[in-house]
Amino acid sequence: MHSKLDVAILGATGAVGQRFIQLLEGHPWFRVAELVGKSSAGKRYGDAVNWVLDGNPPASVVDMIVKPLDSELDSPLVFSALPKEAAVDREPQLASEGHVVCTNASAHRMAADVPLLLPEINADHIGLIDVQRANRGWTTGALVANSNCTVMPLVMALAPLRQFDIQRVVVVSEQAISGAGYPGVASLDIIANVIPYVPSDEEKMVIESVKMLGHLYDDRVVEYDMVVSTTCTRVPVIDGHLVNVSVDLASKPSNNEIIAAWEGYKGDERVAMLPSAPEKPLQYLSQIDRPQPRRDRNAGKGMMTSIGRLRECPVLGYKFAALSHNTIRGAAGSSILNAELLAVSGYLPNFQPEAAVALP
Amino acid sequence: MHSKLDVAILGATGAVGQRFIQLLEGHPWFRVAELVGKSSAGKRYGDAVNWVLDGNPPASVVDMIVKPLDSELDSPLVFSALPKEAAVDREPQLASEGHVVCTNASAHRMAADVPLLLPEINADHIGLIDVQRANRGWTTGALVANSNCTVMPLVMALAPLRQFDIQRVVVVSEQAISGAGYPGVASLDIIANVIPYVPSDEEKMVIESVKMLGHLYDDRVVEYDMVVSTTCTRVPVIDGHLVNVSVDLASKPSNNEIIAAWEGYKGDERVAMLPSAPEKPLQYLSQIDRPQPRRDRNAGKGMMTSIGRLRECPVLGYKFAALSHNTIRGAAGSSILNAELLAVSGYLPNFQPEAAVALP
Amino acid sequence: MHSKLDVAILGATGAVGQRFIQLLEGHPWFRVAELVGKSSAGKRYGDAVNWVLDGNPPASVVDMIVKPLDSELDSPLVFSALPKEAAVDREPQLASEGHVVCTNASAHRMAADVPLLLPEINADHIGLIDVQRANRGWTTGALVANSNCTVMPLVMALAPLRQFDIQRVVVVSEQAISGAGYPGVASLDIIANVIPYVPSDEEKMVIESVKMLGHLYDDRVVEYDMVVSTTCTRVPVIDGHLVNVSVDLASKPSNNEIIAAWEGYKGDERVAMLPSAPEKPLQYLSQIDRPQPRRDRNAGKGMMTSIGRLRECPVLGYKFAALSHNTIRGAAGSSILNAELLAVSGYLPNFQPEAAVALP
Amino acid sequence: MHSKLDVAILGATGAVGQRFIQLLEGHPWFRVAELVGKSSAGKRYGDAVNWVLDGNPPASVVDMIVKPLDSELDSPLVFSALPKEAAVDREPQLASEGHVVCTNASAHRMAADVPLLLPEINADHIGLIDVQRANRGWTTGALVANSNCTVMPLVMALAPLRQFDIQRVVVVSEQAISGAGYPGVASLDIIANVIPYVPSDEEKMVIESVKMLGHLYDDRVVEYDMVVSTTCTRVPVIDGHLVNVSVDLASKPSNNEIIAAWEGYKGDERVAMLPSAPEKPLQYLSQIDRPQPRRDRNAGKGMMTSIGRLRECPVLGYKFAALSHNTIRGAAGSSILNAELLAVSGYLPNFQPEAAVALP
Repeated sequence: MHSKLDVAILGATGAVGQRFIQLLEGHPWFRVAELVGKSSAGKRYGDAVNWVLDGNPPASVVDMIVKPLDSELDSPLVFSALPKEAAVDREPQLASEGHVVCTNASAHRMAADVPLLLPEINADHIGLIDVQRANRGWTTGALVANSNCTVMPLVMALAPLRQFDIQRVVVVSEQAISGAGYPGVASLDIIANVIPYVPSDEEKMVIESVKMLGHLYDDRVVEYDMVVSTTCTRVPVIDGHLVNVSVDLASKPSNNEIIAAWEGYKGDERVAMLPSAPEKPLQYLSQIDRPQPRRDRNAGKGMMTSIGRLRECPVLGYKFAALSHNTIRGAAGSSILNAELLAVSGYLPNFQPEAAVALP
Repeated sequence: MHSKLDVAILGATGAVGQRFIQLLEGHPWFRVAELVGKSSAGKRYGDAVNWVLDGNPPASVVDMIVKPLDSELDSPLVFSALPKEAAVDREPQLASEGHVVCTNASAHRMAADVPLLLPEINADHIGLIDVQRANRGWTTGALVANSNCTVMPLVMALAPLRQFDIQRVVVVSEQAISGAGYPGVASLDIIANVIPYVPSDEEKMVIESVKMLGHLYDDRVVEYDMVVSTTCTRVPVIDGHLVNVSVDLASKPSNNEIIAAWEGYKGDERVAMLPSAPEKPLQYLSQIDRPQPRRDRNAGKGMMTSIGRLRECPVLGYKFAALSHNTIRGAAGSSILNAELLAVSGYLPNFQPEAAVALP
Repeated sequence: MHSKLDVAILGATGAVGQRFIQLLEGHPWFRVAELVGKSSAGKRYGDAVNWVLDGNPPASVVDMIVKPLDSELDSPLVFSALPKEAAVDREPQLASEGHVVCTNASAHRMAADVPLLLPEINADHIGLIDVQRANRGWTTGALVANSNCTVMPLVMALAPLRQFDIQRVVVVSEQAISGAGYPGVASLDIIANVIPYVPSDEEKMVIESVKMLGHLYDDRVVEYDMVVSTTCTRVPVIDGHLVNVSVDLASKPSNNEIIAAWEGYKGDERVAMLPSAPEKPLQYLSQIDRPQPRRDRNAGKGMMTSIGRLRECPVLGYKFAALSHNTIRGAAGSSILNAELLAVSGYLPNFQPEAAVALP
Repeated sequence: MHSKLDVAILGATGAVGQRFIQLLEGHPWFRVAELVGKSSAGKRYGDAVNWVLDGNPPASVVDMIVKPLDSELDSPLVFSALPKEAAVDREPQLASEGHVVCTNASAHRMAADVPLLLPEINADHIGLIDVQRANRGWTTGALVANSNCTVMPLVMALAPLRQFDIQRVVVVSEQAISGAGYPGVASLDIIANVIPYVPSDEEKMVIESVKMLGHLYDDRVVEYDMVVSTTCTRVPVIDGHLVNVSVDLASKPSNNEIIAAWEGYKGDERVAMLPSAPEKPLQYLSQIDRPQPRRDRNAGKGMMTSIGRLRECPVLGYKFAALSHNTIRGAAGSSILNAELLAVSGYLPNFQPEAAVALP
């Protein structure tokens, strides 16, 4: 039996940090060994955390003592749920010390040599790690980011449509409150209300989507060539970001061809080996009133994106709705999936999961 | 002192019927004289109604006995909150008997000789009444409709932009539950959830908007020439429909010109005389996170439309959000405003409000 | 390997019927073989059902054809999610034909010879089945009820306190909308609101709690001797009924003795063998703001009752809050647990689960 | 025409401060002349405030510059919406300088010489001002408090029952989120959830209710002699605190006598002269499912308390539900009503409203 790889979680008491802990409980390859925080440093995790997920923190972590942010870490693999400001310096520093850092923070997402990785749609971007190591003089370390949570359902739905040559996209999101972290959105602002603005998400959706859908040529990612217009709104939903998308596809496929592209989509062959990957990345729901955040966010244990309502758009050609669980598929779950891809791809030093042995 | 005009309310116990009663309480020109219903016929209103608005029904109506749907009515003016199926036959029948019927039902909205009236934006359509009377052999009677509640914020916001030559519109709505009437949306479907589909509203938004924004030439309304793509979603909000709009304007105005067009918009001069008209039809909110349904729906006693977030759309040119109170501006309040316009325009037989005397 | 027992579900398309299907998916002893409904009879289940739980109905049932309510059934075990009126005649009829009927309906709960069974607290009541069979001339058939969903957290919390001699109880509930079924509570009534009344639940809580906490003497259950005052309110929560309880205990235990009674409570020894039984029936949460419906309802897969906030009540002596998942522990899950108890107790003819072999 | 009295508002940018401004807009006696804040000092109010009520701040205040907390104030009357810590020193200081301070803060409520005033139920407590001035050497200044927002519906409902000799009370509240101020309750904590604990409110309800219902003998208030048990819970409601009350009345009145006591209750005769007083302090609603927060909180412009569901309690004798608007009747509105009572009672130096002239 293989032993598990020790991992550290930065920002362990925050909402995303909690989700990392929850999702890693019982993980077949990784084992939470170190919890790192700022204001909670030195405290027992069970005392420091205000657990905002269901139930209580797992017994396996409650007695761990939270380490300070600048601690030397033993874990080869580090998951970061740090706020942007804290991530800017600390994440590259850890990578330079040899740690592989999979981060949910936005700080380094758009750096040219940092892969904005999503295994199903751009596993080839992993090659940027070699560029990064060369650029920065890192040896075993690496820095890999996952996207903003609202970009997720958009790029998941668009990835299989690249074959139809995407030209223009107009997207309006209806985002869950958990996307703002904790305490995040004040209840007085959102109960029985909609806030038609989410700070900085509209910009992130534009720049991150074209990077993620782009291809790696030599040592850089060439952005996907499409025009994207985004509107981000907040609704009183706990988890699950819904996007309403109009899209212009140059090759004018039929609706059936589009649905077949979604339903048949698999992405890189390595994905099938990853323990956190859902049975399939996308499902198309035939009911006219789906996907719905509360009913569909947990598909594939929160890792599957649900699509529905494909129909004609008189302006751009095609319209549909897509939904992902924002704190699983759109945050911690994606980071973990990225780390699993790194594992089977040989980027985690001295760790080779059994699954990877089967690789050609 | 002028005496008030008697009005009847069809479908008086339903959610929209209740709103008619609430808004007509203390109205300077009209007086609720007859309440009409189907299953509630023969009952005291206070016993028959399940009042879903705030507080209790006004004392002035609780002891009225609800009349059957096929009753002969004494009131010259009739407001209809009937469901579509009941409206199909009964509304024209009442008009043929000489009643002026202002209806919120969708049954006759798209008939070529029925004005889909919104005083601020197409008061000239009132001329269709003459066509209607000629066509149908009606004398004093008339049938005037107001639009679907979700069309309202869209056409209110677009009307002042006609000067910039509207080409294409992509709109995504976030609609309140009250738009579905009572009992309407089951709480199990909508609490902490979004339903990405509202039956038939997407089609209505398309066909009603181009009719409303069109102009009357001779005896018919020529639809406004634009392409509209609509997505309608339901959110857990009590009242207030928000629309997220991308629009292509041929003349490429500056943002300031657009805001000036909204803020300065007045519509037909008769509107200023109407007691239910807000101080101005539209307000532009400068805060980046407005309009919000719960905070802005009651602007102008629920009759003002609020707009915000005007900015560049990389695909269509311009983007903004607009909001109207769906059961006031988008339903009963609009019907009442229409009736007021009919009054000052001489279409209510034997009734001339003082205000109208001042007309040139 | 033992083969599974076929079960039928009455009222299979309703909200509770759906929960039966969901909870029985993958059950180690039972297999859903027949679905029965009224308006859905003759239809494919996948077409007939408006699935209100998360995701979609299990693949194992979507192609089943729903049988009419008066069908002859093959399954020895029948779960009933019928409305009260339909249950009155049909449930005893099925029992008389030899089926064991575990019902969530209220129709027969208070019949003297029908056990209102809750394995952890009154497994001895199962003896009423023999009385019932003798009374009614039934042979292999039986009729076993579970309680109202709001009674559940109350009796679960009070059962271990019987040793302290319960005198008086004042309880105020805050109940989830799913307790009203589907479509149930209109969203216009409950979003951002509280309804301080739940039809008939206050009466049910009084009469069912004293029956459930009572003991079987010879051939009848003698009600537990306590005075109960109930107030039932509805709140905008999806699942999970919370009760705020003040209680007078004659023997004046310390708070620690009460918590020990809860934490150590096991109930009848057979419970440990039942696959749907949680690890322990009750958990006491030490955080001052728990239990909370959304965070604690899924404890023990929705079968564990959570208690918190034990403190002095200046009027009755002790106060606490308790919470159960109303459609799992308080409805379908309880019926299934009851059937499991019948199985290990030899009341399911020709079916003996492996677990039962170990019984002394 | 009388000129209006200048008032200052301490803590003007907070949620309660905003409510003061909203309620004083157009007040017949008082005029907002000074706004005072801590972090907002020196800023234009319109820039400093995050307005959480409907619409936008009134035009009359947006251009005022917020004064620092330690400013010398010109207004004879001061309304305080300060947090407790800030109120401790500043409020008595202002009173010592000659200002009459009506405070919503809890800091001084329980001081023996500070009236915890509620005009309808204990107008006689106003006499404590003379005691206070004597004790503290104040001349024209005074410090008058209003109660915690959750105590309000309880004491309003109990006050008319004092004639029946109240013995014991068990109360469970369901409190709106606005009671926690802004940002207050995180949406992640309360959407589709109940929190069964509200910090410090249970204690406040006990101690404040017996003080408020007590009588002034000579120079001190003697607490009302009853035993109160309180449970405070938070629900996802915007405004409106509901209390579920069981009460033991020694004289065993009939339900009709109790309802007559509520409906006929007027309180002190001066109340009829106060502009913010509702037509009557209490209304009894006959519908079985009322009062409801969203539908009844605005009765009497938010100043009337609504009661319903009076019925037998098997444990304590009587049960009912009561509701008050927590940020109007339970906070700013009560402070203003208190100030109006001071005005007609001659406690506002150099200010005598016309109404007071009519006093006997």
